[in-house]
Amino acid sequence: MFHIKTTILVFLVFTVYAYPQAHYGYDLWLGYEKIGNPNLLKEYKDLTKAIYFEDGSDVLNAAKKELITGMEKMLGSTLNFKETPNTNYTLLIAKAATIDPALTKKLSANFYEVGSEGFVLKSVIHRGKKLIVLAANEDIGILYGVFRLLNLMQQQKDLRNITLIEYPKINLRMLNHWDNLDRTVERGYAGYSLWNWHKLPEYIDQRYLDYARANASIGINAVSLTNVNANSHILTPMYLEKVSALANVFRPYGIKVYLTARFSAPMEIGGLKTADPLDADVRQWWNDKVNEIYALIPDFGGFLVKANSEGQPGPQNYGRNHVDGANMLAQALQPHNGLVIWRAFVYSEHDPEDRAKQAYSEFVPFDGQFSDNVLIQTKNGAIDFQPREPFHPMFGAMPNTQLMMEFQITQEYLGFSTHLVFLPQLYKEVLDSDTYSKGKGSTVAKVVDGSLDRNKISGMAGVSNIGNDLNWTGHPFAQANWYGFGRLAWDPYISAETIADEWLKATYSNDPNFVDPVKKMMLISREAVVNYMNPLGLHHIFDTGHHYGPGPWVHDLSRPEWNPTYYHKADAKGIGFNRSHSGSNATGQYATEVAKTFNDPKTCPEEYLLWFHHLPWDYTLKNGLNLWDGMALKYQEGVDQVEEMIETWNKARPYITHEEYQEVQMLLKIQLKEAQWWRNACLLYFQTYSQKALPAGVEKSTKSLEYYQSLKFPFAPGIRPQWD
Amino acid sequence: MFHIKTTILVFLVFTVYAYPQAHYGYDLWLGYEKIGNPNLLKEYKDLTKAIYFEDGSDVLNAAKKELITGMEKMLGSTLNFKETPNTNYTLLIAKAATIDPALTKKLSANFYEVGSEGFVLKSVIHRGKKLIVLAANEDIGILYGVFRLLNLMQQQKDLRNITLIEYPKINLRMLNHWDNLDRTVERGYAGYSLWNWHKLPEYIDQRYLDYARANASIGINAVSLTNVNANSHILTPMYLEKVSALANVFRPYGIKVYLTARFSAPMEIGGLKTADPLDADVRQWWNDKVNEIYALIPDFGGFLVKANSEGQPGPQNYGRNHVDGANMLAQALQPHNGLVIWRAFVYSEHDPEDRAKQAYSEFVPFDGQFSDNVLIQTKNGAIDFQPREPFHPMFGAMPNTQLMMEFQITQEYLGFSTHLVFLPQLYKEVLDSDTYSKGKGSTVAKVVDGSLDRNKISGMAGVSNIGNDLNWTGHPFAQANWYGFGRLAWDPYISAETIADEWLKATYSNDPNFVDPVKKMMLISREAVVNYMNPLGLHHIFDTGHHYGPGPWVHDLSRPEWNPTYYHKADAKGIGFNRSHSGSNATGQYATEVAKTFNDPKTCPEEYLLWFHHLPWDYTLKNGLNLWDGMALKYQEGVDQVEEMIETWNKARPYITHEEYQEVQMLLKIQLKEAQWWRNACLLYFQTYSQKALPAGVEKSTKSLEYYQSLKFPFAPGIRPQWD
Repeated sequence: MFHIKTTILVFLVFTVYAYPQAHYGYDLWLGYEKIGNPNLLKEYKDLTKAIYFEDGSDVLNAAKKELITGMEKMLGSTLNFKETPNTNYTLLIAKAATIDPALTKKLSANFYEVGSEGFVLKSVIHRGKKLIVLAANEDIGILYGVFRLLNLMQQQKDLRNITLIEYPKINLRMLNHWDNLDRTVERGYAGYSLWNWHKLPEYIDQRYLDYARANASIGINAVSLTNVNANSHILTPMYLEKVSALANVFRPYGIKVYLTARFSAPMEIGGLKTADPLDADVRQWWNDKVNEIYALIPDFGGFLVKANSEGQPGPQNYGRNHVDGANMLAQALQPHNGLVIWRAFVYSEHDPEDRAKQAYSEFVPFDGQFSDNVLIQTKNGAIDFQPREPFHPMFGAMPNTQLMMEFQITQEYLGFSTHLVFLPQLYKEVLDSDTYSKGKGSTVAKVVDGSLDRNKISGMAGVSNIGNDLNWTGHPFAQANWYGFGRLAWDPYISAETIADEWLKATYSNDPNFVDPVKKMMLISREAVVNYMNPLGLHHIFDTGHHYGPGPWVHDLSRPEWNPTYYHKADAKGIGFNRSHSGSNATGQYATEVAKTFNDPKTCPEEYLLWFHHLPWDYTLKNGLNLWDGMALKYQEGVDQVEEMIETWNKARPYITHEEYQEVQMLLKIQLKEAQWWRNACLLYFQTYSQKALPAGVEKSTKSLEYYQSLKFPFAPGIRPQWD
Repeated sequence: MFHIKTTILVFLVFTVYAYPQAHYGYDLWLGYEKIGNPNLLKEYKDLTKAIYFEDGSDVLNAAKKELITGMEKMLGSTLNFKETPNTNYTLLIAKAATIDPALTKKLSANFYEVGSEGFVLKSVIHRGKKLIVLAANEDIGILYGVFRLLNLMQQQKDLRNITLIEYPKINLRMLNHWDNLDRTVERGYAGYSLWNWHKLPEYIDQRYLDYARANASIGINAVSLTNVNANSHILTPMYLEKVSALANVFRPYGIKVYLTARFSAPMEIGGLKTADPLDADVRQWWNDKVNEIYALIPDFGGFLVKANSEGQPGPQNYGRNHVDGANMLAQALQPHNGLVIWRAFVYSEHDPEDRAKQAYSEFVPFDGQFSDNVLIQTKNGAIDFQPREPFHPMFGAMPNTQLMMEFQITQEYLGFSTHLVFLPQLYKEVLDSDTYSKGKGSTVAKVVDGSLDRNKISGMAGVSNIGNDLNWTGHPFAQANWYGFGRLAWDPYISAETIADEWLKATYSNDPNFVDPVKKMMLISREAVVNYMNPLGLHHIFDTGHHYGPGPWVHDLSRPEWNPTYYHKADAKGIGFNRSHSGSNATGQYATEVAKTFNDPKTCPEEYLLWFHHLPWDYTLKNGLNLWDGMALKYQEGVDQVEEMIETWNKARPYITHEEYQEVQMLLKIQLKEAQWWRNACLLYFQTYSQKALPAGVEKSTKSLEYYQSLKFPFAPGIRPQWD
């Protein structure tokens, strides 16, 4: 019937399946793959043979819906809920106050320890029957407990003898969205803003709900919707109605909404002639505005404020200070239990002082002067979200101030959303740092969770990496940074490894042949990026404005501290910023024990070496190499590490779908290319000073320094046109 | 065991399912729901018992993959492919040249009639066996045939006695993306640009593939990736590499890539002192640039050019004309079979002539002077994508020029992506219009498909409504406009009703209780938007810049023809733009028969009345009402029609998922609110001239004209910051 063809027919059908119906990462860590192990499946099914789930509030309804979604997908069967309390249940989910007191006692000696957000998840024998009970004081504890229960099942944990008493160590677990009202996102690399302001308040995008679910699943309970480089329009009635619609979606998931307050709003939208915080009309305007907001959003969280920082207006415009500004807003919010989150990210081009010292100098004198409902939000380091910075000296230095941590989840200085970098490693390094402010063991974590100084309110914020990309975060592994931030805000003492383990199992697979090597890859990834971008304490040598790629040669920007040359200070003699007591004495802002360590290059941890010291090119490192050779080999090591990551991922291929494999593989290839770019550009440039040959083992660039200097990226993502 | 609660326990589980795993519209019309009807399922399974699918090119592989995807989902079983030709097949898919000639003859008397892109799908009895055969001359015909076959199954058509001979009536079936390199989209209302330039060329987003599949499924074979307000950077090596990566993805789906060429590129990126099209260096630069492009993309389509229009550079900057400019580029592209698509959307603030006349005046004198590989792309009407315009007078007036149609799919003047408007109604109205250029029956469709003037190349472009929203187009029903545009570019003679029917069945359901009323709703939707925005020939009375909502009062913009007052010319005596022979004589640009009809308000179709005539407020309409009352009732009718659409959608609820229902319901509520806004604002404003009371049946506004005039939307989507 056919003309016989002599070529061999290779049929696609045997290798290619139909187009995948995957969600391309949309489901995040809440995909709830069906349990494959039949014994475990049976165990879990027995556990859920009969469920009592306390009914009531919107929060409990949301929790129940989550339980159904998660369990039915993992078990592949319909759950069996019982309505009356006299059945033989196997899983009981209820608030402690509604449970038989005899049973409550078996759950916890003192139920109050779990507080308003915690829960107890425990297998108990009660009246001769083995049960699993999830109990909490408040509805939100039930929701968090349901998510934890599902998460344990995703990890295929044995639940038969479980005892879990959990509560968050930090009160405010917050995402900061740097989202503009035109839907661009400052330093956003995952598409447009989630917030479709144009269609709000009527149109509720399904993503708002799925965003709230994802946040609640990791304990995030606060979100600031708008860019800290704020626009007053968000406080106009038209926008507040839209904000209210979002707050309504988030409320059942225990999430409060915050807004960024532009300090000059009373002038811009209020028609006043001043925004002086001590002016009576200004104070009245803010009082009225706050009352207007709470009439719409009774559980509104409060304001996040960037004032007198990088051109943003603030109290200093009127000869007032941060305390005047923050407390003025705090007074307006206080009757509603609202908070002011005042950012400490300040530095001035008019101040010749080392930029790393300025925030401390400006804020520490105010210790103890801020109102009870003010938190001072401080970046993890004293410069700006670099791949590595020593902890910010303000931590430990303001015992009478509620200091809130600000981490960056979006990868402004860490390869955007193209580089695989597991940030919980960075977060943990900071949280575990010892401030020595009350002696050894005074870790940053203890400052942040309030335990060191007995703060009333504690908080941790993460600058969001979320956009409207199908997979939310651009890079699938960047989901792990959102996840990890949430987990650490809940408990800053859990390890990065635990987080990686949980996330991989919930997202990809439980197979140890997949989990173990890929977890190792994640754990090495942050050190890799430090190595190929900013080894040995180098920092802020990024290209201008967009911060994409290397620009250590940039020296002609209008503000001195915007130039990379300000930070590395390379010259014929050596490289590094002398911040020791013989230099800017930034070390003097730390506790004596810390300062002593940092002051001496011999005791200073080498990862901070050039942060604190300007050293000659032939300075001898701990490994015996001279500084130039050591630096060059660090750059090479970063590139090598990315190559190892690629190898690891290639071996992970059998355990995941083709699409999952391919997506990360493509991104790793970009990462490798860019790691090489960093190594080549930085070494070629620094070589013009060191005048030394590359040591053995470091690949030579095939391109010239001039080539790298000629590269321009006018449309790099994450910046707004006016910044070009 | 529990404290008995006296309240009745209402259990969510009985009404609420787990969180949906729907794709939220991501699958478009390619969801391929499983066939429910058991008889039909059996029929289709019999048809696919054994399939022979010719193997070979990437295009054939893509076609086979589509067949597997679509059929396996609809049938719920695995397809059975046979590798050798001597089996008893039931479905044969192969190129005509490889099929038994005796069988080929049964398929078509003359196979060449289907051309290079067409196909034959036919059930035949061959050697005593009943078969279905899909055959084509070229691989791409097979792909189109597979998609049509799947589409027929989605519509649950009986295939047992099928005879379908199909080929596209128009050569170039093209999407124009107005996407900027920073990923904003001019007049885009569905999120960011699909093109993630930052991660290209290495990272191939799954969406690129799914976009190509969707386009191929409706026959689109050309896409211009970048905004007509062009940026030269797209022509630099760095970006061309990225474009090449996209071209590689699109190639197996028969789609060629085009770019917008900024006329001043030789100066901006070429370092030349001029962009004069007659300058030898400029011509050489374009020759070199074109050669560079084709070295990377051997099947590159060509350039789309907006020149000397709204501030874009062009040949007139150098004292040259459109022919000089277009033919210069055409000469560079000609050796590679590339095309120049030169836009006719021109008008000048320095020209006092009626804007509606300017494109005709500027282009018609050049008829016959453009090179063979130039197409002149002309918007459907003489102003700018209004809810209704008479057909552009250039259609029919340039018999020796290849005129290409430009429709707008994105809803710049039609409610953005919040209003449900089925645009094939608009497209068909234009295509069916009779130009009388070669006597009665000289429809615009015949001009566009080239049959009237025997053009070598014909084309139809649609300005894309696609962005990175989960559902691609913002409004789920806006998918129907993408779909419908493609279908009409393939065949401009099919009816809007057929398109609605196909799309509804492929997207939602085959249940006639759903399809029939919802189809009616779609078919009325375009007239509804005309009624509540611009009835009786009114046009361009949109608010400034963003075109969101009414702004008939705007009169102070720098260019006269940017002001709505220029277009409606309302005064105490009446309203409308006199374009008849007693006015601007725009009617004189049409063929005599058409001009005659338009010139007399008594014969002018009332839907164009105020487009061509300035008439007194008490002018008597055909229905006996005076103009003011008739206009007011039209505005009301538009609002009433949206209310009917809401009722229709409420009744459609049982046939779709809760999420599908809810999404459109929320959007229809916005549409109703905005329809009322249009009615109120326009009637309040025009009333200040007519000084007449509203007729019975028209709802009075509860808000004042001043209120409507005070509304500001600085962050309306689809505009770039610099246009604020």
